[in-house]
Amino acid sequence: MTDTFSKMPSANTELWEPRYAARAARMQASEIRELLKLLDQPDIISFAGGIPDPALFPVEAVSKAYLDVLSDKVQASRVLQYSISEGDPALRAWIVDHMASRGVACAAGNILITNGSQQGLEFLGRLLLSPKDTALVEAPTYLGALQAFSSNEPRYDTLHLGQTNRTPDSYRRAAMDAGGEVKFAYVVPDFSNPSGETLPLDGRHDLLALAMDLDIPIIEDAAYAALRYDGVDLAPLQALDIASVGSINASRVIYCGTFSKTLTPGLRIGWICASEQLIARLILIKQASDLNSAAINQAVLLRLAETLYEEQVSKARIHYRAKRDAMLAALAAYMPDSVTWTQPEGGLFVWVTLPPDINTSALLKRAVSQARVAFVPGHAFFTDGTGTNTMRLSFSLPDIASITQGVQRLSELIRNDPT
Amino acid sequence: MTDTFSKMPSANTELWEPRYAARAARMQASEIRELLKLLDQPDIISFAGGIPDPALFPVEAVSKAYLDVLSDKVQASRVLQYSISEGDPALRAWIVDHMASRGVACAAGNILITNGSQQGLEFLGRLLLSPKDTALVEAPTYLGALQAFSSNEPRYDTLHLGQTNRTPDSYRRAAMDAGGEVKFAYVVPDFSNPSGETLPLDGRHDLLALAMDLDIPIIEDAAYAALRYDGVDLAPLQALDIASVGSINASRVIYCGTFSKTLTPGLRIGWICASEQLIARLILIKQASDLNSAAINQAVLLRLAETLYEEQVSKARIHYRAKRDAMLAALAAYMPDSVTWTQPEGGLFVWVTLPPDINTSALLKRAVSQARVAFVPGHAFFTDGTGTNTMRLSFSLPDIASITQGVQRLSELIRNDPT
Repeated sequence: MTDTFSKMPSANTELWEPRYAARAARMQASEIRELLKLLDQPDIISFAGGIPDPALFPVEAVSKAYLDVLSDKVQASRVLQYSISEGDPALRAWIVDHMASRGVACAAGNILITNGSQQGLEFLGRLLLSPKDTALVEAPTYLGALQAFSSNEPRYDTLHLGQTNRTPDSYRRAAMDAGGEVKFAYVVPDFSNPSGETLPLDGRHDLLALAMDLDIPIIEDAAYAALRYDGVDLAPLQALDIASVGSINASRVIYCGTFSKTLTPGLRIGWICASEQLIARLILIKQASDLNSAAINQAVLLRLAETLYEEQVSKARIHYRAKRDAMLAALAAYMPDSVTWTQPEGGLFVWVTLPPDINTSALLKRAVSQARVAFVPGHAFFTDGTGTNTMRLSFSLPDIASITQGVQRLSELIRNDPT
Repeated sequence: MTDTFSKMPSANTELWEPRYAARAARMQASEIRELLKLLDQPDIISFAGGIPDPALFPVEAVSKAYLDVLSDKVQASRVLQYSISEGDPALRAWIVDHMASRGVACAAGNILITNGSQQGLEFLGRLLLSPKDTALVEAPTYLGALQAFSSNEPRYDTLHLGQTNRTPDSYRRAAMDAGGEVKFAYVVPDFSNPSGETLPLDGRHDLLALAMDLDIPIIEDAAYAALRYDGVDLAPLQALDIASVGSINASRVIYCGTFSKTLTPGLRIGWICASEQLIARLILIKQASDLNSAAINQAVLLRLAETLYEEQVSKARIHYRAKRDAMLAALAAYMPDSVTWTQPEGGLFVWVTLPPDINTSALLKRAVSQARVAFVPGHAFFTDGTGTNTMRLSFSLPDIASITQGVQRLSELIRNDPT
């Protein structure tokens, strides 16, 4: 009886699947987010997650803001109802002022509220990329952006700036050969995820000139821009372009901002700042995608921004600067000479390059099992299959003693690497 | 001087636009949401918005829930941080129980949390539709679903159930002739937006048989399912299919649920319930689209669901039943004999059909300017260009006296229609 029974297909094994759209083949899990699930063990020193330190979250202010917003009956009815797709006018007005402080003169019609900047990137991919079109991205680049763009089935080409033999025509021809055209360049110009590097002013001008030659927009991901620890702020690409073309509605730069790294990622509030004509199209995408971002979270975010944006940014700079300094000092003290790394002036990441024969995906397994240290192998941040000897280290979460200890352990492991 | 100056092109008129993806041409504003912006004048009786009555929002409970969630330091750090894409495990567990109460046996792996059911619909369109593929939709159907699907450049075909000369082969051939295949059927089986009608049990079985013949999934939009005022609940299509095929992972029905119509739309929390293999793919789309729904809102929603879901649903049923009764009574009392309407057993809408020569888009202008009454012209809910003599009336927002007065004024206008 048991035998007969075990041979019968159980209902649970008869899985039904629909025929998916062709684009479904390009939808892949983020290695990083999958990794994070495995690294919850408390004795591991994790340099893997690129997320803000919850010690900085202004919990009491958030709590007070929700109470305040809901204490007024009329306002409570409004923030618990459906709302307009473009976002809370008062929050957009605050962002207009914030953008002005970054050198970008704009109006409310230039701002769309999104669920974090990730949603902004996904909307832009959907608006701009047809299958086989080319997106120009850095090497390495932000993995979440690749995920956001990839369901539109694009081709990626590596953006070379500064000294390079890539001419505008070479990008154009390669895109045509692939069956599409170059549709945009995507960059994280300030303290990039994952490299920690900042695009210098001449690089910004080079990129604007390339974009003008190719007649493409630039997507400027400013996720980390507020988190500068040394040196002076560089003008956003959008500010430089506006200075050249005269107004935001004439500009080809699309700026993606977020409150996730400065106030909290938990409210899921970011924004896109771009020409009115582009924002008008993005509002349609927002409407079709989820109607509107939660009005209550927008109202709370506005109160936080009005009352403690500057204070939180100052706190975060002091907090993360010390952690970055600890990580750079430990790398200098313990890493073998064959290892190099970036010197980030801000953000959350240091990018480490090992000797070419060390594969960091294999190293991670030993790092977790033997050294109890985690990081993100760099390979996933490249669209061309390279970067197997690189890694991203985030200094945002561990305390300073753990940073030092973790880098020391990792250095030992690399020093004794069998390859 | 002034003349010379005025002839110079202003910077603001030199607009730059990128080359958009082909799909951008299909992204259009919702007539309804555009309409709503114009109807804020307080002396207009509006039957236009299909939104819940804010008088029902449990404001104090929401306020208390935010306070509670943020009062615990560990929990506060968690809900203000990034979170897992599939959603809060505890909220998913509550939804599993809720689905069980609807006859759907499932597990947490069958649930994805979305930003309202609108995001669920958009994800499903993206997962299933390639350009030129066919989506089967009712006539009339929910406009927001058409918006959600349309950026994938589908063709629509009208779903005929019950007595019809449309065979499965006729759907299949028409889809092939259009260059794709039938990818899914989309229905709002309970108290549909916009028609207010409910798919009877034999219609549900017909639809399941058709979907099996075409080997396609059914997207079951259950937005209004909890709001029944008369009669007995019908089993969801998903429950009927599971009863037939043995388990949810073998089922072809994809259920989109939401808390927007029962608790509040302001937290933007809905869900998709489907086979594990489909949910696994949808989690990737969620991750790429906006990483995760706000963890704080999920935690608050869970508390509301646990403490007052049943109470809120009971209140809403009593509240809206009285309004529906008032609208149906007024229609019977005042409308000319040439006008017919549906008898909704739940939901928020009555669907009205006027004589064929009355164009309701034109009528709306006179209704607003002369009668100070607003509604949504029915045309936009059809994919085949018909429905010009139909309208959607929502009874959710006006009070009972206004419902009676508004229908009376509208009836007068129709009675005296010059066409």
